[in-house]
Amino acid sequence: MNQRLAGVMHWLEEENINFAFVQTKANVFYLSQFYTEPHERLVGIIIFPNSEPIMICPNMEKPQARAAGWEYEIISYSDSENPWQLLEARLKNQLPSVSKIAIEKEHISFTRAKALLNMYPNGELVSVEEKLYSLRLVKDEKELKILKQAAQLADFGVEVGVNAIKAGKTEMDILALIEYELKRKGIREMSFSTMVLTGAKTADPHGNPGLTEIKRGDFVLFDLGVVLDGYCSDITRTVAFQEISEKQREIYETVLGAQLQALSTCKIGTRIGDIDLAARNYITNAGYGEYFPHRIGHGLGIEVHEFPSMSENNNDRLQEGAVFTVEPGIYVPSIGGVRIEDDLVITKEGFESLTNYPKELIII
Amino acid sequence: MNQRLAGVMHWLEEENINFAFVQTKANVFYLSQFYTEPHERLVGIIIFPNSEPIMICPNMEKPQARAAGWEYEIISYSDSENPWQLLEARLKNQLPSVSKIAIEKEHISFTRAKALLNMYPNGELVSVEEKLYSLRLVKDEKELKILKQAAQLADFGVEVGVNAIKAGKTEMDILALIEYELKRKGIREMSFSTMVLTGAKTADPHGNPGLTEIKRGDFVLFDLGVVLDGYCSDITRTVAFQEISEKQREIYETVLGAQLQALSTCKIGTRIGDIDLAARNYITNAGYGEYFPHRIGHGLGIEVHEFPSMSENNNDRLQEGAVFTVEPGIYVPSIGGVRIEDDLVITKEGFESLTNYPKELIII
Repeated sequence: MNQRLAGVMHWLEEENINFAFVQTKANVFYLSQFYTEPHERLVGIIIFPNSEPIMICPNMEKPQARAAGWEYEIISYSDSENPWQLLEARLKNQLPSVSKIAIEKEHISFTRAKALLNMYPNGELVSVEEKLYSLRLVKDEKELKILKQAAQLADFGVEVGVNAIKAGKTEMDILALIEYELKRKGIREMSFSTMVLTGAKTADPHGNPGLTEIKRGDFVLFDLGVVLDGYCSDITRTVAFQEISEKQREIYETVLGAQLQALSTCKIGTRIGDIDLAARNYITNAGYGEYFPHRIGHGLGIEVHEFPSMSENNNDRLQEGAVFTVEPGIYVPSIGGVRIEDDLVITKEGFESLTNYPKELIII
Repeated sequence: MNQRLAGVMHWLEEENINFAFVQTKANVFYLSQFYTEPHERLVGIIIFPNSEPIMICPNMEKPQARAAGWEYEIISYSDSENPWQLLEARLKNQLPSVSKIAIEKEHISFTRAKALLNMYPNGELVSVEEKLYSLRLVKDEKELKILKQAAQLADFGVEVGVNAIKAGKTEMDILALIEYELKRKGIREMSFSTMVLTGAKTADPHGNPGLTEIKRGDFVLFDLGVVLDGYCSDITRTVAFQEISEKQREIYETVLGAQLQALSTCKIGTRIGDIDLAARNYITNAGYGEYFPHRIGHGLGIEVHEFPSMSENNNDRLQEGAVFTVEPGIYVPSIGGVRIEDDLVITKEGFESLTNYPKELIII
């Protein structure tokens, strides 16, 4: 039994839950190493406190599940079969009645939750999501190795972008080139829609890259990441084009100072909210408090935004193996915005930055 | 009141439903022209049978909703407010009790459905999805104009890919170049993960593009589409590299013949299943029936796969303005696969193909 499944089984036993039903892409991957996008079709894992888990998936996905290393029972079905009937027959055989079922309450559809309740009308539905998020929070060695490679590819993406900056180039020209070079290295998927923004658009959190040409005196903001072997990276860098005003320089240096301040708090045991506050106080003291409207960062792993949410009211403490972003920003309408974001992992010694593209002000 | 909202209101009145709550990105866009990806945050539209609709969205999204043309009430909320409390207060004011609430049963989370039931414990939850899908099925003039442009960009993507085929190039080299050229034209999002497959991988429905180099005698299969102004395109073409075996040629000509056969049935009133059967019978008669494992196509619009599902048992009839794909394929393990896919719209005269890249066998 892998540690992850064992962790869920142990929790189910402690909580007197009869079984957990897990069906999001991210959690199925986390528990089984089976990375699949079944769209409307049902792929799920049923975990019991005291017996081996079961997977349910379409017939045509079964070989991939085995190849990913799933060694337990698989209930598979054809397009003409009703997977819920097969699942009910199998579950009822093992559990004629249940008192509690754990589901991904925030991410399972009403129809699917209802299908479970139809099987067990007296079952109470409880949430398995917090448990899975807390397990996923601490990354193991294999995960860290992939996350580091994903972060290096994000560094490379920024490098390609910075090197491509030239008068007359548009945001989309540069964005296209970044993704082109990453795809040639085998990256099929970016971890989110790549952002290359210039000029006043850098100050708009809703700014979309477009056919705007880069102009002298613009900030150019890159925010991008890749998906590698199921894990995400996420980096932001901001550079200036040809010249920079005193005000822009002050904004840049304030964000950089705030980021370094926040990083300096990152070690085992730090209250997560204090990382946010370290940056926020720095920015507020410099007079830009109202222009830093978002949290300092977010957990990073199978999903690009995952647990924990790194906001000032988060009282949880940093643990060894936690991977997250630190990304303060200042966005001043009509002047522009700067954000500097790194991915890091908490280590015995403090933290290690997974992204390493230079952060000192660069004027192209 | 726009026709789409009016259509839902009319249906609610007929069905004696107190209100509909719509919260998927696609349906919110369809009803409001507001294209947003709120992730975990709530964005929804509440439609009543006999009074004006309401939108709920985060404060920071409100200007975008207005800019998209939403002229009715907006309940907006900050990150520190509970949107469900605001919504409940507003709804209870208008409707102290309800008997039926229509929701997107297959696409609303259990938590959200539960929040509605907590407001109205005696409300029966019914589905609004079939109604919205049937409205979305028939495209209006503005939608068709965008879908045509999106299809032309898909044609262009195939053209870029075919022109880039050269010994030594990998699948990812070509894929990267296709997306590069489309992004430079301002396309931010492909409608699905672009597929460029070569050789034996063309026969694997699970084949992922990778660093495989193109070899003499390979089929090269392109399956791609773009998102333009909220609407999707989807094209597949297959070409041969340098030489082609008799068997490969027979497979290609069979798929092409089947596709033309299926297209010839496409006009107002055709039973949808008969389009599938036209291609399926053609392929079966040629001896390849077991190698055509999927349906003939799918509806196309705001989503790349939308209603209707074009399979042989679909008894619905084609309507004017329906837009869908026709994409037969034959996949023979170790020899390779061919799929030819066009997007079309049903017109008074029959059909018009939106994609127009040549379909005759091309040997590069």
